[in-house]
Amino acid sequence: VTAPVVELVAVGRELLTGRTVDTNSAWLAAQLADRGARVARIVVVDDDPAAIAAEVRSALGRGAALVVTTGGLGPTFDDRTLEGLAGGLGRPLGEHPEALAFVTRRYADLAAAGAVGDAALTPPRRKMATLPAGAVAIENPVGTAPGVLVLDGNVAVLSLPGIPAEMRAVFAEALPRLEDRLGGGGHVVEREVASGSGDESVITVASDRVMREIPGVWLKSLPTGFEPDCDLRVRITARGRDAAEAETRARAAATRLAEELARLARR
Amino acid sequence: VTAPVVELVAVGRELLTGRTVDTNSAWLAAQLADRGARVARIVVVDDDPAAIAAEVRSALGRGAALVVTTGGLGPTFDDRTLEGLAGGLGRPLGEHPEALAFVTRRYADLAAAGAVGDAALTPPRRKMATLPAGAVAIENPVGTAPGVLVLDGNVAVLSLPGIPAEMRAVFAEALPRLEDRLGGGGHVVEREVASGSGDESVITVASDRVMREIPGVWLKSLPTGFEPDCDLRVRITARGRDAAEAETRARAAATRLAEELARLARR
Repeated sequence: VTAPVVELVAVGRELLTGRTVDTNSAWLAAQLADRGARVARIVVVDDDPAAIAAEVRSALGRGAALVVTTGGLGPTFDDRTLEGLAGGLGRPLGEHPEALAFVTRRYADLAAAGAVGDAALTPPRRKMATLPAGAVAIENPVGTAPGVLVLDGNVAVLSLPGIPAEMRAVFAEALPRLEDRLGGGGHVVEREVASGSGDESVITVASDRVMREIPGVWLKSLPTGFEPDCDLRVRITARGRDAAEAETRARAAATRLAEELARLARR
Repeated sequence: VTAPVVELVAVGRELLTGRTVDTNSAWLAAQLADRGARVARIVVVDDDPAAIAAEVRSALGRGAALVVTTGGLGPTFDDRTLEGLAGGLGRPLGEHPEALAFVTRRYADLAAAGAVGDAALTPPRRKMATLPAGAVAIENPVGTAPGVLVLDGNVAVLSLPGIPAEMRAVFAEALPRLEDRLGGGGHVVEREVASGSGDESVITVASDRVMREIPGVWLKSLPTGFEPDCDLRVRITARGRDAAEAETRARAAATRLAEELARLARR
């Protein structure tokens, strides 16, 4: 059972200066893993269309079924992800009627609420509705910039806003269009067990053996600092064609791990 | 004034499954920016020597003066960063006497304190002292795995542990050997000012003009959700040959920004 491969491209200088921690990528990775997909790589780049285009292109070249970008969809001069997306996909940019209708409605509402001075469709606002040809605009229930989804045969590229609340909301809106592309990965069960040991260099010997014996399982001790009598936990990730198979494998791995650790402790 | 370029390579499956947020990269980016260097790219990859080697190689190929990896230096089977480093640099791996002395001492202390069962130099422990040829071992004041620094002409590659407390401590130990490579970037001043506006699509027009007028400054409104009467803040980053020049530029940018925003509001 192989999971569809996803790559993430986080865009924004604030992530490269250390002013902002990229929490979006971890959130997306967990969401995608829950749906059977596997994030193989995350890259953080500057607000630079050429860099964004190169990353989208190379992710697709490595065989990603889905590329998700975060950030750079807003109205400011350095929000340039859609240029990068167009470059990476080799599609021209053009005003998207549905996206423009969304942006128009948003600013009308904001102007009526007194949050912005007026509802004029200035160039910075219009830019948010200038999408690569053939893209689908995704509603943004929280902010002004629509999400952008490009479906191209077996591959998909989704661009989400960078503000976490907007990112999450637009991802949820896009999900129904993606679910059948993510579902090929079978079922994943994850559990944590106590090892009874405080020494990763011992646990790794036991984990290694269990992974060689039982297919579809991945064991990993959770590192912490050393403390006397520390009982390190081990995370077991099991994948199967369905929930029952994943569950059986996780249970078998936990049992075999305990046996191996007991055996090593007796020596 | 151009800042030396740094690229970061964060290693670890836990970062790709979303179980762990990569806070290390943002911390390092801020530290490096404070010392005049510029992080141009961050990539997160799996515990896979081939992937790590490819990222180190391509970062150096893009002209990075320094590549910093985090994670994958420990004793467990999936700690494989040093293999990746060796591959990326085209240097063979070999036992490093100084690193081995460090690991030996660490496990002796831990065994004496009862934190591990014994001090035997098992293969998983010995692995932590198996470094690329010509590397310098960096003391780890917190954990068992030494940091690894490879200096190669004008370029440097530094491998740090993934546990944040260890990463920070080993970075501090390595810094004296790196400072002269980072110092070429002049001085950076950063400040935040109130814009008096709640609309990024207006602030961007003013920021854009200020950046075209004043060299070495970078202005960026800090996005939040829209709230009525919200006063968005603008971050001004100014770089100069010395503190005085950076300070003068930051002050000039703040003044010009306020003038431009007032002018746009009057229209």
